[in-house]
Amino acid sequence: MNTFGQIFRVTTFGESHGVALGGVIDGVPPREPIDTDALQRYVARRRPGQSSLTTARNESDTVELLSGIYHGLTLGTPIGYIIRNSDRHSDDYDAIARCYRPNHADYTTEARYGIRDPRGGGRSSARETAARMVAGGIASQMLARRGITITAYTSAIGPVRCEKPYTALDLSAVDNNAVRCPDADTAARMAAAIEQARGEGDTIGGAVTCVVSGMPAGVGNPVFGKLNALLGSAMLSINAAKAVEVGDGWELARARGSEVIDPFAVTAGGDIITTANHSGGIQGGISNGNDIIVRVAFKPVATLMRPIDTIDTEGNAVTLAPRGRHDACVVPRAVPIVEAMAAIALLDSLLASNKFTTNNGETIQ
Amino acid sequence: MNTFGQIFRVTTFGESHGVALGGVIDGVPPREPIDTDALQRYVARRRPGQSSLTTARNESDTVELLSGIYHGLTLGTPIGYIIRNSDRHSDDYDAIARCYRPNHADYTTEARYGIRDPRGGGRSSARETAARMVAGGIASQMLARRGITITAYTSAIGPVRCEKPYTALDLSAVDNNAVRCPDADTAARMAAAIEQARGEGDTIGGAVTCVVSGMPAGVGNPVFGKLNALLGSAMLSINAAKAVEVGDGWELARARGSEVIDPFAVTAGGDIITTANHSGGIQGGISNGNDIIVRVAFKPVATLMRPIDTIDTEGNAVTLAPRGRHDACVVPRAVPIVEAMAAIALLDSLLASNKFTTNNGETIQ
Amino acid sequence: MNTFGQIFRVTTFGESHGVALGGVIDGVPPREPIDTDALQRYVARRRPGQSSLTTARNESDTVELLSGIYHGLTLGTPIGYIIRNSDRHSDDYDAIARCYRPNHADYTTEARYGIRDPRGGGRSSARETAARMVAGGIASQMLARRGITITAYTSAIGPVRCEKPYTALDLSAVDNNAVRCPDADTAARMAAAIEQARGEGDTIGGAVTCVVSGMPAGVGNPVFGKLNALLGSAMLSINAAKAVEVGDGWELARARGSEVIDPFAVTAGGDIITTANHSGGIQGGISNGNDIIVRVAFKPVATLMRPIDTIDTEGNAVTLAPRGRHDACVVPRAVPIVEAMAAIALLDSLLASNKFTTNNGETIQ
Amino acid sequence: MNTFGQIFRVTTFGESHGVALGGVIDGVPPREPIDTDALQRYVARRRPGQSSLTTARNESDTVELLSGIYHGLTLGTPIGYIIRNSDRHSDDYDAIARCYRPNHADYTTEARYGIRDPRGGGRSSARETAARMVAGGIASQMLARRGITITAYTSAIGPVRCEKPYTALDLSAVDNNAVRCPDADTAARMAAAIEQARGEGDTIGGAVTCVVSGMPAGVGNPVFGKLNALLGSAMLSINAAKAVEVGDGWELARARGSEVIDPFAVTAGGDIITTANHSGGIQGGISNGNDIIVRVAFKPVATLMRPIDTIDTEGNAVTLAPRGRHDACVVPRAVPIVEAMAAIALLDSLLASNKFTTNNGETIQ
Repeated sequence: MNTFGQIFRVTTFGESHGVALGGVIDGVPPREPIDTDALQRYVARRRPGQSSLTTARNESDTVELLSGIYHGLTLGTPIGYIIRNSDRHSDDYDAIARCYRPNHADYTTEARYGIRDPRGGGRSSARETAARMVAGGIASQMLARRGITITAYTSAIGPVRCEKPYTALDLSAVDNNAVRCPDADTAARMAAAIEQARGEGDTIGGAVTCVVSGMPAGVGNPVFGKLNALLGSAMLSINAAKAVEVGDGWELARARGSEVIDPFAVTAGGDIITTANHSGGIQGGISNGNDIIVRVAFKPVATLMRPIDTIDTEGNAVTLAPRGRHDACVVPRAVPIVEAMAAIALLDSLLASNKFTTNNGETIQ
Repeated sequence: MNTFGQIFRVTTFGESHGVALGGVIDGVPPREPIDTDALQRYVARRRPGQSSLTTARNESDTVELLSGIYHGLTLGTPIGYIIRNSDRHSDDYDAIARCYRPNHADYTTEARYGIRDPRGGGRSSARETAARMVAGGIASQMLARRGITITAYTSAIGPVRCEKPYTALDLSAVDNNAVRCPDADTAARMAAAIEQARGEGDTIGGAVTCVVSGMPAGVGNPVFGKLNALLGSAMLSINAAKAVEVGDGWELARARGSEVIDPFAVTAGGDIITTANHSGGIQGGISNGNDIIVRVAFKPVATLMRPIDTIDTEGNAVTLAPRGRHDACVVPRAVPIVEAMAAIALLDSLLASNKFTTNNGETIQ
Repeated sequence: MNTFGQIFRVTTFGESHGVALGGVIDGVPPREPIDTDALQRYVARRRPGQSSLTTARNESDTVELLSGIYHGLTLGTPIGYIIRNSDRHSDDYDAIARCYRPNHADYTTEARYGIRDPRGGGRSSARETAARMVAGGIASQMLARRGITITAYTSAIGPVRCEKPYTALDLSAVDNNAVRCPDADTAARMAAAIEQARGEGDTIGGAVTCVVSGMPAGVGNPVFGKLNALLGSAMLSINAAKAVEVGDGWELARARGSEVIDPFAVTAGGDIITTANHSGGIQGGISNGNDIIVRVAFKPVATLMRPIDTIDTEGNAVTLAPRGRHDACVVPRAVPIVEAMAAIALLDSLLASNKFTTNNGETIQ
Repeated sequence: MNTFGQIFRVTTFGESHGVALGGVIDGVPPREPIDTDALQRYVARRRPGQSSLTTARNESDTVELLSGIYHGLTLGTPIGYIIRNSDRHSDDYDAIARCYRPNHADYTTEARYGIRDPRGGGRSSARETAARMVAGGIASQMLARRGITITAYTSAIGPVRCEKPYTALDLSAVDNNAVRCPDADTAARMAAAIEQARGEGDTIGGAVTCVVSGMPAGVGNPVFGKLNALLGSAMLSINAAKAVEVGDGWELARARGSEVIDPFAVTAGGDIITTANHSGGIQGGISNGNDIIVRVAFKPVATLMRPIDTIDTEGNAVTLAPRGRHDACVVPRAVPIVEAMAAIALLDSLLASNKFTTNNGETIQ
């Protein structure tokens, strides 16, 4: 269960403080140009240490592409890659190895496997998502060349919500601030909420909204492979994600049918569109051509900078002193991960739906 | 993409007004007793026409088991089954065949496949879930024999919410009323909300809460196969589901870390437990032994009993007259479907996690 | 493991003397015409009781198509189907239920599952292949409409071999005789060999050669999904198959490289071809446009019409009296099964290779 | 299609002259001791340059294990690994890039993908099998700790066959000579046959026999996942393999049923055994506890050390001068690859069959 996707299949590996993270992407269409510099920048958006709001772990997250690309084009063969872990502190984790931290995966990992790599959360660390960024970046480039763009942004930090709809935001401004909310005023209040939580040795949750534009109608499936389910699975596989909604989501549960109709219309060019988008671009599990909208809720980081009462692996009560390097809020760093998982899930669906045109016309330079 | 599961794999087939629905369940452990009468009752909970709140389509949903069971025990071979469609009205659907109803799958299905069975929504009809009920019922029996029980109930209808936590409810009382909310007062207000919507030719959304008790710690996976993601995918594959949350869900996005700690403790019997359950029984994607809590939001039924303006398949404006047989609210009937999908997903995870003890001790009668 | 294929996925179910056999075919391209009469004839080629050479079990093998086809065209949704077992003799099998017949699956099935349906071999009966014929027939129609034809024939019965190469045979004459060898003289000698074995209460093995014409170059995969491996897996999943070879097969193991070159040439029309075909149409795991040649060896039927010494399930020595209805040689009936499995495997590979053109131009009548 | 296995899933990547080969093994049971020195030796058995009989390419095939193992035990998380390509000669391949060599994958790869890495055959090079050796070595260690051993040997080189049955051979002597035939006299004649072919600028085919001892009864599946089919697929996925047979294989096609009975018997210890093994340890697709026997035929190496007439990618006739570094016979080097693929396929089947006991008793040092 370290593979995501049916056709564009991403398999990741790696523990937080192991030698390296990495992955293999199988099912890559041949003859696709890959911009490796852009890919490195894409991956770097997730890495730690980018602002005062995030953890101090120092990782360059340099991607080594090992196969599947030749003279700048994909070969159709699997793309293997690794990202070395450089800032490894194995000895930091002796105490943790003997305890079960609350709200962490320590206990459940031992219950599952009977063994655990205690260094930085092992396989359960969000560091694993670095390996997904590579696949997300490659998927993203293929989608973008077909007019499909994916933009996520921080839409809530604790009680601070971005009240404007995405259509009223400048989505090109997401990276203008450290919290990754394109509304500057809201971003400032979000940053303050994070700093306040950090100042109190606490952490804080939040939400990310993801907008996909340009997806053609007819991608997805009517039963188990509904686009809702694929995106839901993609998002809920991200560390700390605890809820996902499509379109108006929970508002739909409170609504009358007559209030949430997405009427069909025909454009001057003859295209069928919907003039409202309560459905979030997905009807009957299949895209309808409108923007796809997904929102994801993230719980607060489990590691507080306070003494925590818990138990050790023998069941004895212990108090853990605060230590290590941790984000007070993961949400800003989750923004590129949400985009990456959306890109992987949607490229996979696009390939399965026969709406993907392969690149036969381009010659090898 | 008509298969769900990795080990306990359910594949369904069938259109709403075709000859029959059905499915194959592969990966069934051998030597499991199956109570076919209980299975038929389990399937029947989903069928239409059970109360004045639901559609008038008359289907007995009689399950024909065709293979995989011998003398009351599973053989380890696939269980094939069919459910005949008896109340078929193919000619009712001529008008629909030439239109795209808003918020339905008509347009997206044609965009996906270039062809559509217009009779009752074809493959996109919620009738397909009858086939899932059989697999859910079989999974449910296997889980129950291992002390794992799954109970869902209607926790919201439009603005009417069941404010009591599930721990304050009598979960054995779910079927005491037609809306399937175990709190009688809330149930009455929910029923009134549905009747009011119906009286106005309208429909109404709602939510289902699902509680899983008895799941051992250590089931699930740390990365893509997180239990959150598997349950999310299961729930968002149900017709009309648009949001899913685990544990405190969206509340976690608004919370501080210090507010949502699930402290570990050790029982007198030496078992490790958590004394709170903000995580909803899942930490790091793996069960921790506490109750698993999932909530699912359902949009209002798309078919209103009012004239609806839309377009035909040529793009011309048309007005559809209200007709056919439709629920004003699907949520009560979604309750057993939520249970069935939870049972399928959790049995599959249990089998993958090596916490499943096969039935070697029982002899064939 | 009752599913075959990655995109065109066939899942079968059913025991030999259960209620019905059946299956689901998922991943069927939409808008494909299906000739159901031709499909029934295709399935019937495998059924028993067609000549004096085969078993007397009386089964019409009538296919009931339950879903996935509308007005003669595939919908893109799964095709479910069943074949009822009519000639069931459950009580014939009491003695077998208490014994392990040599060279049968009785003992291994119990070792695997701890339980067994003793009626006619249960799931291990070759009767299961009736369900594959439906999928093979549907695949075959899709391939034929794209110019790809599959013909198998009996190329050996015991020591009697068809010495002529397939290029010297009239492949349209396969069904002219009961052994399904297109060379009449050889067929007569094969029939005599079968009759002689039967007369001695014995059984006899043989081989089937399968020729695929019209497959475009570029279908298959370079590593695990090599066409050799996919066809090998398809053929070795047929009951009683114990060996498979591609192209010159074992002759290649004995050869020098210089003796088995398949030189490239260019036709007047500019097509690249190979002027010899030692490789059997597959190079590097991928089709090269030449005929694909596969040969399969079948062991003799395990059930002799003689008393057999064996053990019962308690380990006691027993002698089984000859009984029941059994072929003295399965090879003639294996011919259509080989074709069906080749059709399934090759359509699946074709769909994965993007050489399959979907049927967009045809309208629904 | 670069993944093999259902539970123990191996995904490989890498081109012959790319940066590195590698892979990910998912589904590894936790708490399994891995001897990394033994693993390196296992991998090294396949590498080139080990004797005068094989190619001169100089590769150390040093395995870098990147994840999934902690303090010598598996974590249950995926094992990622790479093997760097050190002896890369990209510029050697300019001529090949413009030609289609006969019996190579050059043409079929371009037909499949529209692009090709010409350096050393790219993904189609047998160098890819180095990545499989790592998975095979890990699987092999797990099997050996459960008493299951796998030994392959060269059983034919061109016309020279090892006539003794495996039971008359000392299987521990396989590596005593460069051809890997445990019968010294036969080995000498095989070596002579290879040297003679090489001396004439030619190549030569051959066969490998693989013997698996200690496999418990009850592993495999009755229909598509027959052990015959899984092993067949594993073997036919090896470069140059063109035929595979199980047990007596093609001899069974020529036999009478009465000649090839494997009678059951009961040992003094009460175990059920078969006293003959025509079936090669597999009946009804499931292991019966006897030795599993598989034989694989390999075609001669396609690259002769002679001028070869062929066409270029424009269809013009060209003559390729002999060049590069190539084995005159791959069979000796195929021996460990056959073992590795058998180990992967059989561990996967064992895990699926619930006959695998996990390692709960061993503590972490």
